[in-house]
Amino acid sequence: MSAPHEPLSSLAASTLSLEALTQLLEKVFLRHGTSASVARTLAANCAGAERDGAHSHGVFRIPGYVSTLNSGWVNGQAVPVVEDVASGFVRVDAGNGFAQPALAAARSLLVEKARNAGIAVLAIRNSHHFAALWPDVEPFAEEGLVALSVVNSMTCVVPHGADRPLFGTNPIAFAAPRAGGAPIVFDLATSAIAHGDVQIAARKGERLPAGMGVDGLGQATQDPKAILEGGALLPFGGHKGSALSMMVELLAAALTGGNFSFEFDWSNHPGAKTPWTGQLLIVIDPSKAAGQPFAERSEELVRQMHGVGLKRLPGDRRHLQRARSMAEGIVLDEQTLVQLRALAGE
Amino acid sequence: MSAPHEPLSSLAASTLSLEALTQLLEKVFLRHGTSASVARTLAANCAGAERDGAHSHGVFRIPGYVSTLNSGWVNGQAVPVVEDVASGFVRVDAGNGFAQPALAAARSLLVEKARNAGIAVLAIRNSHHFAALWPDVEPFAEEGLVALSVVNSMTCVVPHGADRPLFGTNPIAFAAPRAGGAPIVFDLATSAIAHGDVQIAARKGERLPAGMGVDGLGQATQDPKAILEGGALLPFGGHKGSALSMMVELLAAALTGGNFSFEFDWSNHPGAKTPWTGQLLIVIDPSKAAGQPFAERSEELVRQMHGVGLKRLPGDRRHLQRARSMAEGIVLDEQTLVQLRALAGE
Repeated sequence: MSAPHEPLSSLAASTLSLEALTQLLEKVFLRHGTSASVARTLAANCAGAERDGAHSHGVFRIPGYVSTLNSGWVNGQAVPVVEDVASGFVRVDAGNGFAQPALAAARSLLVEKARNAGIAVLAIRNSHHFAALWPDVEPFAEEGLVALSVVNSMTCVVPHGADRPLFGTNPIAFAAPRAGGAPIVFDLATSAIAHGDVQIAARKGERLPAGMGVDGLGQATQDPKAILEGGALLPFGGHKGSALSMMVELLAAALTGGNFSFEFDWSNHPGAKTPWTGQLLIVIDPSKAAGQPFAERSEELVRQMHGVGLKRLPGDRRHLQRARSMAEGIVLDEQTLVQLRALAGE
Repeated sequence: MSAPHEPLSSLAASTLSLEALTQLLEKVFLRHGTSASVARTLAANCAGAERDGAHSHGVFRIPGYVSTLNSGWVNGQAVPVVEDVASGFVRVDAGNGFAQPALAAARSLLVEKARNAGIAVLAIRNSHHFAALWPDVEPFAEEGLVALSVVNSMTCVVPHGADRPLFGTNPIAFAAPRAGGAPIVFDLATSAIAHGDVQIAARKGERLPAGMGVDGLGQATQDPKAILEGGALLPFGGHKGSALSMMVELLAAALTGGNFSFEFDWSNHPGAKTPWTGQLLIVIDPSKAAGQPFAERSEELVRQMHGVGLKRLPGDRRHLQRARSMAEGIVLDEQTLVQLRALAGE
C-alpha cells in the first residue's frame, strides 16, 4: 500500500548474495528497534522476496517497515504467545508485533498437529502483515503438506454492490507439493489491482483498464488519480471476488480475534504502514488421503495443464528468478543499496 | 451442465408444501432405482433448493438425475463407507454413488471431530455431485460452525493462459454463523458463467458479455452458440479465478482420491449427467477462537457492510424466498408438476 519504487535513472547496479542481503536487512531492522529474532525473520522474508523477483514485497518494503517502526505503531520486540487450544487448533497472540515471527513461533506445533490430526489451523491475532503471503505457505508444501492462508489488511476495497470501501486487499495464498518440481503456489489479492500499480499508472499518466476502482463519489473510473485521491479499489471478479474478500475478513479477523480491516486507527502514528489485523493458516497432511500419493496426483494435474497449452504455472517466474539469483546473486541498483546501507548505519 | 428449464407458455401453476414436494421427489428417485436412504437425501436437497428459489438446482435437475440413473452411470444403491483416519480427518468412499448421502453418512463424525480438534476435514471420493453446494455448508453454520467446501465437476473451463478446456466449473461454498440472522453463505462457480445461462442466451439469440467463453478454436467469443458448439467457458476473474479453479481440482480430487474433472469417461453411458469426482469439506469450530464470540463478530461485519451501502448479502434472496415458500408453499408450473408425477409413477 506504500509508494512503489521510484523509477531509477541510474544504471549502476550491485550484486549481493542472498546471505549478504539478509544480513544487511537484519542490521536495518535491528537498528530500528526490533529484537534479534524479529530482525532475522523479517530480513529472511524480505530478502527471499527480492531473490525471487517479487520486487513489490522485497527491499522496496524496507522504508515502510522503518517508518512504521519509527512511528511506534508496531512492537518490534514483541514475543509471540503460542496457545495450544486443541488437537487441531493453535492460536498466537502476536503482541502487536509482526505476523511472520508469530508464524515462526507456532510453526513446529502447527506441523506436528497437522501430521497427527490430518489438518490443523493456526489463528494469529494482534499482528501486522506487510509482506507477500506466498512465503508463509510455500515451506509447508516443501515438507509435503498442503497449506492455505488468508490475511486481511486495511480498508481500501468497495464490496460489490456497496458504494464505499470496507474490505482490505485481503489476499489468499495456497501451496501444494508436487512430485516433479517445485510446489504449486499462488498468492492472489482479492482486489482487482494492487495499490502500488495504481500509483505507478498515476505517475505515468496512464489510464487503468475498466473495473479496477472508483472515485471519491463511488463512480467507476479508469483515472488512477481519482482512485488515489479519495477513491478506492474494486474486488476482482465482481460479486465473486467480493464474497471471497468477505470470507477473508471472517477467517483472518473474526476467527482469530484480530481486527477487521476497518477497525484500527493509526492516525496517531504518522508513518505507520502496516495493517494491525490477523491471519489464518490451514495446513493439511495429504498422506491421510486415499489413492495415489498427492504429489503424484498434483504432478498429473500440472502435466495436463501443460497439455492444454498452459505455458507457465503461477510461481514459475519466481522460481526461474530464484535460480538466477542463487547462481548470479541478487541485483540491486546503486541508489537502493546506498539507502539500505544508510538505514543499516553502515 | 444440462439443458435449462424450457420457458413455459402455460401460466397454470400449483402450490405444494415443502413436505409434499419432498415426498414426490422421493418417489421419483425410488422409482428410478435408488435406495430409500438415497431417495430421502436427494429429495430433501432438491426440494430445499426449489423452496429457496435456486431453480437451477431445484426440480429442474430431476430429468438429469433420472437419465443418469437410467444410464447406469451412478449407483443409486451405493452405501457410503466412512473411514475414521485421524482426529481431524474423515474419508468417505461414496461407492460411485451421490455425494450428499456420503456427506450425510459422515456428518456426525465430522462435527464431533471439528468440535474436539477445532478443525476437521471430510474427503469424499468416488462420488457424484449434481446439486448446489450451499446446502452442504449452510447446516454447519446453523450449528455455529464455519464450513468451506469445494467440488470439481467436468472439463468445460479453459485455464487462464491455456487454449483448451481442462477444469470443471469447480464451485467454492462457504458458510459462517452470525448472531443477528441467518448464516452468511455463498456458493460461487469458478467459471465466469454457468453453462445453463449460456444455453439460455443461445436460445434467445442474445450475445454474452465479454470474457465468458471461447469458441472451438480457443478464440474469445460473445456468441453463446460458439461456446456450446465445441467451445468452452473461461474462469471468472482471469488468472485469479483460474488459480482458484486449479486449487479446487487439487483439494476435491487429488486430496480425496477422486477423479480430476478430465479423468472420467461417460461415453458408454448416454444420458449420464453427473460428474464422477470428489468433494472436500473443511469445518472449523469458532468457539476455539480468541476474543468475542465469532457470531457477534460476523454480525458486526454484516452491519458494517450495510453501513457502506450494501443492500443485499449473498444468500439474502434465498432466505426471502424460503420464508415465502414456507408461508405460501412452493409454486410449480403445471407442466413441471405433470412431468414429476409421471416420473413418480403417480
